[in-house]
Amino acid sequence: MKVAVLGATGAVGQRFVQMLHKHPWFEISVLTGKASVGKKYGEAVNWRIESPLPEDVAEIEVQPTDLSSLKGVDLIFSALPSSEAKVIEPEIMKANIPLVSNASALRMEPLVPLIIPDVNPDHLALIEVQRAEGLGPAATDPNCTTTMAVLPMKPLHDKYRVRKVNVCSYQALSGAGYPGVPSYDIVDNLIPYIPSEEEKLVRESRKLLGKFNGETVEMANFQVQATCVRVPVLDGHLVALHLEFDEEVDVDEAKRALSNYVSEPQRMGLPTAPERPIVVREEPNRPQPRYDRWAGEGMSVTVGRVRKGSSKDSLLLLTLGHNTVRGAAGQAILLAELMRAKGYI
Amino acid sequence: MKVAVLGATGAVGQRFVQMLHKHPWFEISVLTGKASVGKKYGEAVNWRIESPLPEDVAEIEVQPTDLSSLKGVDLIFSALPSSEAKVIEPEIMKANIPLVSNASALRMEPLVPLIIPDVNPDHLALIEVQRAEGLGPAATDPNCTTTMAVLPMKPLHDKYRVRKVNVCSYQALSGAGYPGVPSYDIVDNLIPYIPSEEEKLVRESRKLLGKFNGETVEMANFQVQATCVRVPVLDGHLVALHLEFDEEVDVDEAKRALSNYVSEPQRMGLPTAPERPIVVREEPNRPQPRYDRWAGEGMSVTVGRVRKGSSKDSLLLLTLGHNTVRGAAGQAILLAELMRAKGYI
Amino acid sequence: MKVAVLGATGAVGQRFVQMLHKHPWFEISVLTGKASVGKKYGEAVNWRIESPLPEDVAEIEVQPTDLSSLKGVDLIFSALPSSEAKVIEPEIMKANIPLVSNASALRMEPLVPLIIPDVNPDHLALIEVQRAEGLGPAATDPNCTTTMAVLPMKPLHDKYRVRKVNVCSYQALSGAGYPGVPSYDIVDNLIPYIPSEEEKLVRESRKLLGKFNGETVEMANFQVQATCVRVPVLDGHLVALHLEFDEEVDVDEAKRALSNYVSEPQRMGLPTAPERPIVVREEPNRPQPRYDRWAGEGMSVTVGRVRKGSSKDSLLLLTLGHNTVRGAAGQAILLAELMRAKGYI
Amino acid sequence: MKVAVLGATGAVGQRFVQMLHKHPWFEISVLTGKASVGKKYGEAVNWRIESPLPEDVAEIEVQPTDLSSLKGVDLIFSALPSSEAKVIEPEIMKANIPLVSNASALRMEPLVPLIIPDVNPDHLALIEVQRAEGLGPAATDPNCTTTMAVLPMKPLHDKYRVRKVNVCSYQALSGAGYPGVPSYDIVDNLIPYIPSEEEKLVRESRKLLGKFNGETVEMANFQVQATCVRVPVLDGHLVALHLEFDEEVDVDEAKRALSNYVSEPQRMGLPTAPERPIVVREEPNRPQPRYDRWAGEGMSVTVGRVRKGSSKDSLLLLTLGHNTVRGAAGQAILLAELMRAKGYI
Repeated sequence: MKVAVLGATGAVGQRFVQMLHKHPWFEISVLTGKASVGKKYGEAVNWRIESPLPEDVAEIEVQPTDLSSLKGVDLIFSALPSSEAKVIEPEIMKANIPLVSNASALRMEPLVPLIIPDVNPDHLALIEVQRAEGLGPAATDPNCTTTMAVLPMKPLHDKYRVRKVNVCSYQALSGAGYPGVPSYDIVDNLIPYIPSEEEKLVRESRKLLGKFNGETVEMANFQVQATCVRVPVLDGHLVALHLEFDEEVDVDEAKRALSNYVSEPQRMGLPTAPERPIVVREEPNRPQPRYDRWAGEGMSVTVGRVRKGSSKDSLLLLTLGHNTVRGAAGQAILLAELMRAKGYI
Repeated sequence: MKVAVLGATGAVGQRFVQMLHKHPWFEISVLTGKASVGKKYGEAVNWRIESPLPEDVAEIEVQPTDLSSLKGVDLIFSALPSSEAKVIEPEIMKANIPLVSNASALRMEPLVPLIIPDVNPDHLALIEVQRAEGLGPAATDPNCTTTMAVLPMKPLHDKYRVRKVNVCSYQALSGAGYPGVPSYDIVDNLIPYIPSEEEKLVRESRKLLGKFNGETVEMANFQVQATCVRVPVLDGHLVALHLEFDEEVDVDEAKRALSNYVSEPQRMGLPTAPERPIVVREEPNRPQPRYDRWAGEGMSVTVGRVRKGSSKDSLLLLTLGHNTVRGAAGQAILLAELMRAKGYI
Repeated sequence: MKVAVLGATGAVGQRFVQMLHKHPWFEISVLTGKASVGKKYGEAVNWRIESPLPEDVAEIEVQPTDLSSLKGVDLIFSALPSSEAKVIEPEIMKANIPLVSNASALRMEPLVPLIIPDVNPDHLALIEVQRAEGLGPAATDPNCTTTMAVLPMKPLHDKYRVRKVNVCSYQALSGAGYPGVPSYDIVDNLIPYIPSEEEKLVRESRKLLGKFNGETVEMANFQVQATCVRVPVLDGHLVALHLEFDEEVDVDEAKRALSNYVSEPQRMGLPTAPERPIVVREEPNRPQPRYDRWAGEGMSVTVGRVRKGSSKDSLLLLTLGHNTVRGAAGQAILLAELMRAKGYI
Repeated sequence: MKVAVLGATGAVGQRFVQMLHKHPWFEISVLTGKASVGKKYGEAVNWRIESPLPEDVAEIEVQPTDLSSLKGVDLIFSALPSSEAKVIEPEIMKANIPLVSNASALRMEPLVPLIIPDVNPDHLALIEVQRAEGLGPAATDPNCTTTMAVLPMKPLHDKYRVRKVNVCSYQALSGAGYPGVPSYDIVDNLIPYIPSEEEKLVRESRKLLGKFNGETVEMANFQVQATCVRVPVLDGHLVALHLEFDEEVDVDEAKRALSNYVSEPQRMGLPTAPERPIVVREEPNRPQPRYDRWAGEGMSVTVGRVRKGSSKDSLLLLTLGHNTVRGAAGQAILLAELMRAKGYI
């Protein structure tokens, strides 16, 4: 399938390019940008990925982000900033070009499924509702921090029903895009505010763990409180979860539920699916960004310090994942794989 | 008053030396150490304070940490590691030499007051109970993270009664002492575990906000859940508090309660007391360690992002303070000032 | 004297504002900017200085950087980017408003003195040549790295005549302005290239140590080779100098020449002059940015590890100074003080 | 071949273990330590390598570093601290167990070859001199910074004869071992002194580029001046070289000599030999530690910014390599491969 990446020069766009380059199903056909339109990608991009920019991709000419650039494309990945996504993504839906977006613009639209492929693959059925309206197919994946929180919440919610969750995040620099956070602001410092991040976590987690009733997604009704902080780490969001459940929790049972968890991507053997979506570590001082962000080639979330809280129905843990792989481009690619495997695209 | 500093070469010990050097009431008379006994302090210490080591202090010969070194001293400050404090501090209490300790050894002892001078100065009356037993006077100040959390909890607890608090910390490197955290472990990384820190926070906060009934301190009965993480910041602990109260909370009223809060150290005009123990900032992205750790010359705690949680009785905020000043040496010195002003020493 | 600061919202501009705020001779009257024209300074600036923005300065309305904004001003400090300075600074010279510029635009102009006040104050006499042409008075101070290198070279050049110098720099983030270096580029990394920096060092050092012959400055004729590298340090440029001289060097004599060095600013007791422009340290591991950048309130350069090279006429040392104080705003203010004290403005 | 790693729990020791684990010729048989003797390696080591500790190695019991532990071993790699190496390595030579050491103890011994396999493989013939004395075979590889400097010096020395070199280093944290540099010393800071490092660079570079005359190595007689600085980077030493030659230098010719350079390890196709020992980059801002340290799987040195100095016979460049791979364990393994391929072991 010929694919386009919208917003291909940014931090997430670069990660799409890197992960799509050797993909068995997808072939990069169109890369779009803004200031860099008309340049070769290799000249337009300030390549910030740990492995070198593939030479053939470097030769692709950057196109403007509009429908005319997207003719003949079989699938679109969007890594656009929200303001641009708001304009073009609805047009793409009307043009019936398959879209998988990592942008926040459409995530909360009732017609658009918000998917973590290993959490709520059944929500993809919303695409049939889109089809009835002559739209799509389109799907979105959530904010990076939401992903790190919700993936381990899923098996626990299945077992004990989450009632409330207190979330504190320790978020990496690449999550702010590129150039992102000025170095002078973050050396020997923290920034305890990330615009809209806490709100996204609150609403997206409730949609992700909500129930698709055949027509729409009913939001899960647990409470979420969040504090999001930027820290001087390159990649890998660490998230502390203080969970309260409807039922009493057993720590060992919870750990087993986490480490044994598999879902459709694993059962279908999708190319980008990690063997285990959730890795549980027993060392007292893990997960750590530098040592755990590449678990499952960046697609696994690592959970550690699973322990009792101050009441029987409470559980505390830390979760960590690579924010531009599992938290963005990698998850969007996995979502596209799932859509194709299930015949939606 | 002639004072001794026990454990004077460590990170907190150095801060004691710096702050005591120009103190109007106290004069450094004895410095103790372990490996460095017999050396001049200037040769023994790897001075890591931002201002130069005072030359006269550099000439003091380091003594062993035992009672014989402490003869003729009017007041002892302890910056010992817990294991050493457990041995010598009870001996000091028996020898009736006034002791103010930043070590954790005696903090939870029923006979020993655990004090934040601007929070629970009335608990000092426990010293009368000590006296009846022929001990002391001795007092302790809490763990650094506990201090950052409890100082802003105090006016809110007075007003709304804390029922539960979820705490996540972002703790600076100097909190681990010196040499402390190896650089290879923390560049581009976080360490999501600080031994005993979460337990200290749980128990110390309940003693600090407990009630002295004339004989003993009755622990406050709120719940505390904590996750403590080391981050690559030099000084200044940032702490996220997600508070639940018995009563409905009004954000503006809460802010006023925080910023108007004063206590005995302020009313008595103690030399090390900050004008305002709690500074409230309105900017969306504060407090930040590098810009706020020196508020009130390192003795104020800065609170920001005071906001509603997911229910009426819930309040979220961030608090930050200098961990070796307000969180350790500075607070211990303020405590000694309070003890003297109230006639306990 | 009423002063203007051109480019007041940038990293150097902010330092000017901070240092001028309490200055005994100068009073901030006009602040200019570009995107922020018409806003109050407090709203326009992203204040990145360690002490709070003075409230009265925050109220000043930002003006455009043109002559009409500068009427009635007695002295102009320029912290403009080079491209803007090239346009406005010659106009200011023609308008005969006294100008002290930290921009690079005019530094190498034959009519304009390039001055380190404690190195070549006599070059100020070039202003008389300007006057004869109906221009000025205007003077410039050099690039930050050049300053750190040339200040300690001066007494050594006087004594032994520099023949060649190999320079390697370790330059702080604030030297790149604000927002400057993206954090993702410099955490766990170095950037071994700073555009134009090496060329500035080569030509400016030869002008600074050149000879004013009554009409023009004859460049000193030593060779300079430089490699400039950006490192993850907030403030303080460290510079390694490998010096070769015409004459044999004695290490102890060289150290004495460095630490005893004083010049006109010291003799005149100018307000911003440090007592000692060069501080020599004997510890094997100094100077270090975090511990030495504030020497002499940021106006002293700290020299360490003075040692023999591989031949008799060779000397190796490290020098460090605060790049936005001694290396930019502070030095420009000291230069203005010198110009006033000598009657040039 | 059954191999032992002496000092296996340190930073370089761990790198040996990781690189030897899948080696086609060598099999880890003995691991030695000091405080950890008797423990399983997995429990003894604080594993700081980016990939997980191999499970079978984790089970190996740590032995004391003495001859009795080394019976039956075919080859010994030493990652010992110098003080320990001084004692045991001469004993190993007498016992005629093949030794490849990364320790500094024997490097300058006349009987012991100091080898960069791609620079001076012919010096291995010194082993025949050893044999005549009943010693060895033993060989050493140089200090990490020396390696980064000398590898690119080799083809330039061949072509133009080095007369003098000024070296400034920007050295990574892992070079100080583990725990190494305390984090509080290096966040927002630099340490401009690394004990003995400059002296090693001076003497080792002259031995490496010296001439083996059949009996001994005649030192090359160029001058070396060095300043070595520790910077807050995890891995990868960056080194600035300011070279002076006997002959006039052509930049393009020099670049070709560098990028075309191959030596015996390449010609023999040794398993750990990189295809190109020297990678030349043309971008103005490379090499950078984070992006270039893994060139050639950590075995290539990356050279950039090759440019003219201030005279015809002068050339400036930057060189960078992974300090624990090319600069230590990887190079020692390559050296062992060379020794075996040439029949010395």
